[in-house]
Amino acid sequence: MASIQEVAREAGVSTATVSRVINNHPFVSDKSRQSVEKAIRKLNYEPNMMGRNLRTSSTNMLLVLLPSISNPFYSKILQGIQDTARRKGYYILVCETDASSEIQSFFINTAKQQLAAGIISLDPSLDLEDVLLPQLQDGYPIIQCGDSPQNDTIPYVSIDNAMAAYKAVKYLLATGHTRIALITASDDFRYATARHEGYMKALAESGIQPREEWISRGEVDYEGGRLAMQKLLTLDELPTAVFAIGDIMAIGALKAIREAGLHTPSDIAVIGFDNIPFSNMTTPTLTTVSQPMYDMGCSAAQMMIDKLNQKEKTIKSLILSHELIIRESTEL
Amino acid sequence: MASIQEVAREAGVSTATVSRVINNHPFVSDKSRQSVEKAIRKLNYEPNMMGRNLRTSSTNMLLVLLPSISNPFYSKILQGIQDTARRKGYYILVCETDASSEIQSFFINTAKQQLAAGIISLDPSLDLEDVLLPQLQDGYPIIQCGDSPQNDTIPYVSIDNAMAAYKAVKYLLATGHTRIALITASDDFRYATARHEGYMKALAESGIQPREEWISRGEVDYEGGRLAMQKLLTLDELPTAVFAIGDIMAIGALKAIREAGLHTPSDIAVIGFDNIPFSNMTTPTLTTVSQPMYDMGCSAAQMMIDKLNQKEKTIKSLILSHELIIRESTEL
Repeated sequence: MASIQEVAREAGVSTATVSRVINNHPFVSDKSRQSVEKAIRKLNYEPNMMGRNLRTSSTNMLLVLLPSISNPFYSKILQGIQDTARRKGYYILVCETDASSEIQSFFINTAKQQLAAGIISLDPSLDLEDVLLPQLQDGYPIIQCGDSPQNDTIPYVSIDNAMAAYKAVKYLLATGHTRIALITASDDFRYATARHEGYMKALAESGIQPREEWISRGEVDYEGGRLAMQKLLTLDELPTAVFAIGDIMAIGALKAIREAGLHTPSDIAVIGFDNIPFSNMTTPTLTTVSQPMYDMGCSAAQMMIDKLNQKEKTIKSLILSHELIIRESTEL
Repeated sequence: MASIQEVAREAGVSTATVSRVINNHPFVSDKSRQSVEKAIRKLNYEPNMMGRNLRTSSTNMLLVLLPSISNPFYSKILQGIQDTARRKGYYILVCETDASSEIQSFFINTAKQQLAAGIISLDPSLDLEDVLLPQLQDGYPIIQCGDSPQNDTIPYVSIDNAMAAYKAVKYLLATGHTRIALITASDDFRYATARHEGYMKALAESGIQPREEWISRGEVDYEGGRLAMQKLLTLDELPTAVFAIGDIMAIGALKAIREAGLHTPSDIAVIGFDNIPFSNMTTPTLTTVSQPMYDMGCSAAQMMIDKLNQKEKTIKSLILSHELIIRESTEL
């Protein structure tokens, strides 16, 4: 078998560069990487994996924490993280936390010890954001993505959730709705409480006191949205519009409305949040607040890489812009 | 701060047991784990993480390779893996391979070195199944899930894909269709070729020679299914039914049919494959072949754990049962 020296000679680089390529070290030029990879293939070189420094690989891995892989919102962000990280020579490992503090703690500790150079958290659990991550940070690179932690020691990339929700509800008010219900999740998620605030503010500005029975909560999935809508459909006086804090819940709500023999938007209009790919596949298509999911992922990865390369001493948090996308579920 | 000895005394167990609980070692009884966790909380004990054996954590981590996090088929399997693994004290790390052999190789090597006790692969790329995994196996625990590798050294859990597709197309034939198109993916995925075979076999049995123009290929996502359907809609003589090898593509096809001003099922019936949660949220709801996704995940995790505990010298592959679920997209 060829030696690392032969590979270096063939590629016209130093053995250190060959080693860096093999170990996927981030600081290798694309040109060198290509020459080395070509030489490796030509000589059929197999690096002795077991001889490699065990810690090497952790320097180019990033851990992404997300609460639920089944919500397409997170998979779209992950794509942005992955694409940006890969271009810089980093690999992504994903941990689904299920919002469990035990799983969160385990992976944060493991990441710090050996597993990864940094953590990008998409998990919006308040405990994680406000207690666990700051406690464990201690100089360890952490970026929050999709939510803005209260604790300002962790840089984040997010949209203005309260403002976006406010504008969505303002739109419903402007199109003549006054009985507007809210489908939301647990208050353990800051983004949910921020969107709830935006809803309250918009109604208050129009002099509408939201009834307690208009607030319906559920799990953040299709079934959760469907059940939350079913509860609203038992009210004596039905709402004429619903704002759901996530598309995945809004899509479940559309289903519940149809199952009850009612129509969207003529009986009950629906607005979602996120603009996941599905939201444009439903019948009717879903009006929603578009979050720049892919860009959020790219930005989070870039912030992490800047932090790791110490280009920036302090990484500035980013608020990205959002957009209300009007589709069939609210057209009259 | 409390010491590990104090925790052991409080919990009424040995310090070794406390250490096992802290290190999430799989072989601890639930009762001991609970006593230790209670004692840790009571005494506010913080284990010195940096003092832990760096290799410890890899003994209770499993790496799951999946091609795309955005396909709900994989997230449902992952849930089964996660639930089963967690009950046995294992943690799951996920790697999205994007079907890239470079990412696959990196993670397989890293997993073998230090990262994980075993690999469960949901990635159906032929290269990975037939070349990469067997080459790198060398006694390292690997389970394939959702597909059946040709190479029989790797135990797998799957359904009979060819048979399931055959039955779906037989159903279309039985309801009077003769011009039945196929929406499929790259032949690099064995499950896709197996379902293609099932389609061919069913048509052949009815004496129907499938036209080349009836086979439309695309990426395995909504947009891929939509574009593949758009191609079929340009044919001079339209098919009256379409079998798509995945729900995610079938849902894109439903969208393309609707956009063309046609109706499902009266103009074109559609059958999908997988039974992802969203297949029951579409309008019309989607007829599909149900794969026991959650059970597949549970079985794969159990096979891995049996292998790790060496309960079984050779792990037997499993073929789970499937089911045709008739919904609105094929009702006449």
